[in-house]
Amino acid sequence: MDRKPFLSDNAASVHPHVWEAMRLADQPDSPYDGDQISARLDARFSELFGRECAAIWIATGTAANCLALATMCQPHGAVVCHEEAHIEVDEGGAPGFFLHGAKLMLASGDGAKITPEGIAALIDPIRDDVHQVQPHAISITQASEYGLSYRLGELAAIGQFARERGLGLHMDGARFANAAAFLGGNASEAAGPVDTLSFGCIKNGGMSAEALVLFDPAQADLVKYRRKRAGHLQCKGRYLAAQILAMLDGDLWLANARAANGAAAEIGQAASDRLMYPVEANEVFMRLTATEREALRAQGFDFYDWGAESARFVTAWNTAQDDAVALRRAIASL
Amino acid sequence: MDRKPFLSDNAASVHPHVWEAMRLADQPDSPYDGDQISARLDARFSELFGRECAAIWIATGTAANCLALATMCQPHGAVVCHEEAHIEVDEGGAPGFFLHGAKLMLASGDGAKITPEGIAALIDPIRDDVHQVQPHAISITQASEYGLSYRLGELAAIGQFARERGLGLHMDGARFANAAAFLGGNASEAAGPVDTLSFGCIKNGGMSAEALVLFDPAQADLVKYRRKRAGHLQCKGRYLAAQILAMLDGDLWLANARAANGAAAEIGQAASDRLMYPVEANEVFMRLTATEREALRAQGFDFYDWGAESARFVTAWNTAQDDAVALRRAIASL
Amino acid sequence: MDRKPFLSDNAASVHPHVWEAMRLADQPDSPYDGDQISARLDARFSELFGRECAAIWIATGTAANCLALATMCQPHGAVVCHEEAHIEVDEGGAPGFFLHGAKLMLASGDGAKITPEGIAALIDPIRDDVHQVQPHAISITQASEYGLSYRLGELAAIGQFARERGLGLHMDGARFANAAAFLGGNASEAAGPVDTLSFGCIKNGGMSAEALVLFDPAQADLVKYRRKRAGHLQCKGRYLAAQILAMLDGDLWLANARAANGAAAEIGQAASDRLMYPVEANEVFMRLTATEREALRAQGFDFYDWGAESARFVTAWNTAQDDAVALRRAIASL
Amino acid sequence: MDRKPFLSDNAASVHPHVWEAMRLADQPDSPYDGDQISARLDARFSELFGRECAAIWIATGTAANCLALATMCQPHGAVVCHEEAHIEVDEGGAPGFFLHGAKLMLASGDGAKITPEGIAALIDPIRDDVHQVQPHAISITQASEYGLSYRLGELAAIGQFARERGLGLHMDGARFANAAAFLGGNASEAAGPVDTLSFGCIKNGGMSAEALVLFDPAQADLVKYRRKRAGHLQCKGRYLAAQILAMLDGDLWLANARAANGAAAEIGQAASDRLMYPVEANEVFMRLTATEREALRAQGFDFYDWGAESARFVTAWNTAQDDAVALRRAIASL
Repeated sequence: MDRKPFLSDNAASVHPHVWEAMRLADQPDSPYDGDQISARLDARFSELFGRECAAIWIATGTAANCLALATMCQPHGAVVCHEEAHIEVDEGGAPGFFLHGAKLMLASGDGAKITPEGIAALIDPIRDDVHQVQPHAISITQASEYGLSYRLGELAAIGQFARERGLGLHMDGARFANAAAFLGGNASEAAGPVDTLSFGCIKNGGMSAEALVLFDPAQADLVKYRRKRAGHLQCKGRYLAAQILAMLDGDLWLANARAANGAAAEIGQAASDRLMYPVEANEVFMRLTATEREALRAQGFDFYDWGAESARFVTAWNTAQDDAVALRRAIASL
Repeated sequence: MDRKPFLSDNAASVHPHVWEAMRLADQPDSPYDGDQISARLDARFSELFGRECAAIWIATGTAANCLALATMCQPHGAVVCHEEAHIEVDEGGAPGFFLHGAKLMLASGDGAKITPEGIAALIDPIRDDVHQVQPHAISITQASEYGLSYRLGELAAIGQFARERGLGLHMDGARFANAAAFLGGNASEAAGPVDTLSFGCIKNGGMSAEALVLFDPAQADLVKYRRKRAGHLQCKGRYLAAQILAMLDGDLWLANARAANGAAAEIGQAASDRLMYPVEANEVFMRLTATEREALRAQGFDFYDWGAESARFVTAWNTAQDDAVALRRAIASL
Repeated sequence: MDRKPFLSDNAASVHPHVWEAMRLADQPDSPYDGDQISARLDARFSELFGRECAAIWIATGTAANCLALATMCQPHGAVVCHEEAHIEVDEGGAPGFFLHGAKLMLASGDGAKITPEGIAALIDPIRDDVHQVQPHAISITQASEYGLSYRLGELAAIGQFARERGLGLHMDGARFANAAAFLGGNASEAAGPVDTLSFGCIKNGGMSAEALVLFDPAQADLVKYRRKRAGHLQCKGRYLAAQILAMLDGDLWLANARAANGAAAEIGQAASDRLMYPVEANEVFMRLTATEREALRAQGFDFYDWGAESARFVTAWNTAQDDAVALRRAIASL
Repeated sequence: MDRKPFLSDNAASVHPHVWEAMRLADQPDSPYDGDQISARLDARFSELFGRECAAIWIATGTAANCLALATMCQPHGAVVCHEEAHIEVDEGGAPGFFLHGAKLMLASGDGAKITPEGIAALIDPIRDDVHQVQPHAISITQASEYGLSYRLGELAAIGQFARERGLGLHMDGARFANAAAFLGGNASEAAGPVDTLSFGCIKNGGMSAEALVLFDPAQADLVKYRRKRAGHLQCKGRYLAAQILAMLDGDLWLANARAANGAAAEIGQAASDRLMYPVEANEVFMRLTATEREALRAQGFDFYDWGAESARFVTAWNTAQDDAVALRRAIASL
């Protein structure tokens, strides 16, 4: 039986336009990021966000997140994030490595989103002395680990809080496109007032390139030295830059995200009472018993269990509409 | 005028077979290195080297070198290498990052090769006490920074020295294929008794994947944790694994290296009295005055100055034979 | 009015026997730890614990803890400790520094003690893959942050758990003497089956030396290299070694701890219904309202608030019996 | 036979005034550096140097040097120092640890002193790109490893060079007092325009405290967080602060240094043709054959060989004048 994949978007095939751009990059040029394609990134992202920024290709979201955080957190400081944030749970301790032992401070919050109140509750009790690690930065995830999108007002509030406390603000945007698509398609609004953004491409039809966007371009130098030092400066960088530009051309990033979000929305309509969270990106979390999950798998659907009583379904840019409909119906029929 | 490129092999185009393999990988599979292509690496390299080994894809030589060294050097130790080794001169301090502050100890040696005698001269004066950093490992480069290939006897001698001193032995093989081709095409002989090998593909027709070969497969776990922690575990790893396998299939790695070596040899024949080193791989270092270099550039040849009185020409898998011949003649005519 | 100090034991004066030993050390000898006094530590602690161990002086408990943990946790691993452990809360991120970015994993437990069940609840859900940091070691505190002493059976259970899981086991013994005194005065029983012990002296009448005890003496080399590398190898180490030996001579460590424990017990008898924890060392935690605390301070007692509704009283080797009695009465009269 | 010690100043006994100050500190006060003695350091050093500075006690010169360098060198940068500098040769890799993998760049220079020209020769060839580690700071040693004192003009020139290149400037002053005494006794002149100074006390009659002097007091916060994080914040810090103040009181630091320098000068007069370097502090390096060294040792003199053909004699604050005279005569009689 043909399997219908809802495991993750992180292993989906590469979009044809990305392939095409990579092929066009297959001619001699300068190594590293000295090529003509890499040179276009800053301007292209400045245009996208409507303000001057630097954009730097990096092969993984983990490295992009960590290099971003290195611009805002010293080794003796800490980064506040949600207790289920990817940087805490799924990056193999990379922040500790890239930040030379800095800590992650774990805030609570519904749907893996954090709020100024939640952050304040975490950091206000910290004594202002050398015995306790002090927060230097905040990292939020757009869309969150549960597929929720921060609204403009929420972002503004966190941004203001960060400024008041003198904290840097980073956004892990592994699924930034999905959040932006959900929020109406405006990149700048979806990013809000963050200082740095890991602009995800790989889960959205790319192959091996994310863009680290620095809204303070003066930080680019630091990131570039650290990228090299982390073994992340690829000598044929033009193939990475090309992927990113292909995602932006003709707003492919939004089109792909809309397709994925649409499929997720389709599934979400199966049974609103099963939904753990509203569907605001390309992930659907549903309460399903072990027996029900078994039944779905028996019908060819692949997905991850999420704890003992629920399941996670992830759609991708290339999720077949038929598969989404089939899954919706299968759940509805349980 | 069409430029004839001899700047470096590190930005050459990607070989068609590599492209083809990447396209074949463009179908759903498990993420990270759980895919069926990545799963083939260990066996394929074990076959190539005639002994059991683990092989792990990594996007850059810098990261491959550093992750290899992390298996053999503790943070309070040191790695002995040549004073002009890539890890010392051109990797932006990556060893210091990956090894948590371990030192590089710099040995001298003709043609950027090191010998047991040279290493002993460096480390024998080190007092065996905690005030001085102790060597934990040796790193050699095959072919060397000057395009010289370690012979079997040289490798055996270093290997024996390393064992006697209890030091790990790493080989930076960014141009391993070129050395192996020069030495007769036997991978195992070209690697000698090293514990770890950064098996280069990118300079030899690949795009974004090197293979880290661990001749003690028990070290694979450590490397995999550290690879993840360094943000180097790509979620669509199958595209990297595919590149590496394509290089091995039908011995493409040797064919490409032989082509590059052949072009270098052609150039080397221009003027034996100008040669700084014998041509044993795909690099040619020649004494050329500034005026002579200017004359060559005026004829369309691109290359790097190497100090004030010489130049470096690097060939690649796709160097046009006509270009090499033209360069040979141009130099001979100076 | 004369203040009666119950703030902490960490700034108490130095015991006369310690002073005397330091003065006796004030003659020429070899630098660092090559002197005759440092040379006696291994044997002296082996005798104390009834098994072969290495003992190394270190100026602070923070450094002792971290150097101990460095023998059992790799940079990509984690140390399990209580969420209120000193290494997590009060050491300024030192474990992250000394362990090169390794994580602390925070277990819950009454009275800042942890149990095999609590640890299992924390680490069992960790997937055995490279995306999640794996535990390498456990650290417990004897006596705990709330002045509770692990009993022999508790220590045995944690030791067995650690062995079964392949985890190192460290004991932060900043107040080890107080626990040992409470448990009957047998050092070996109070340490249980730990691999490393930070044997505290400073809070117990010393000035500037703790002893790091390694029950696997083969680890001493690693610790000594790391101690030097951390700038903790003092050239006049004999003054530190002398402090430690003075603490052991005639079981001064136990006598001092008994004095402190006795004073704490005295205070604890003031009002058993106010006690948050039984008094098993030299700390007393009591429920006291802000008004009550104010009243005590007005009578000359210094102590720390412990949250909004309680207070912490710490006694030391030199706490005046009269002061303890006075505090007991003052609390009883509230 | 009574041995006459010229091995090193690093294990000499503690000066009576230092002992006395420590005893006076033996009364209750706030822990860490919150005590009244520590609180006096900033003002006392500001007075000594005639400009505002912060002064922080640290137990070892290694830690003081590294914490100073951490204010001026990022993890991806480098510190330029002499190839025989203590931080390179004798600190067990501590700079790599404290600076998170930053490099030391080794300049040459007579008598272990470096010059703007020597530094320029080292760093000018470094390409301004991410592939090569960039210098962030310079560290010089006053007096140098060979007992030479930088003159005011030399310090001014290095200071100007550092400013022009945007590099921080640190001075390792393990024997700063000896240099200052040699230069006339003015602390400010002996420090020149450095940004940070490790003001040594231990080799000059102290026990376990050096002062890190920050001529930009705004850096004190960073150093204090890093000191804690490195396990160097002792809870009974008043005993360290007391040592330092005792050294400054009545210019004991200069008196002690003058005594040591005088003894070295005495020895230096034995045979000017044997002197490898002029005697400008408390170290004497002399050409002496193995036979001659053996003869001296047979007469009761203890000292270190310095290579195969010379010896190092170090005097201390308490070197007996008779011993120095005896050594002078013994050498003269060889």
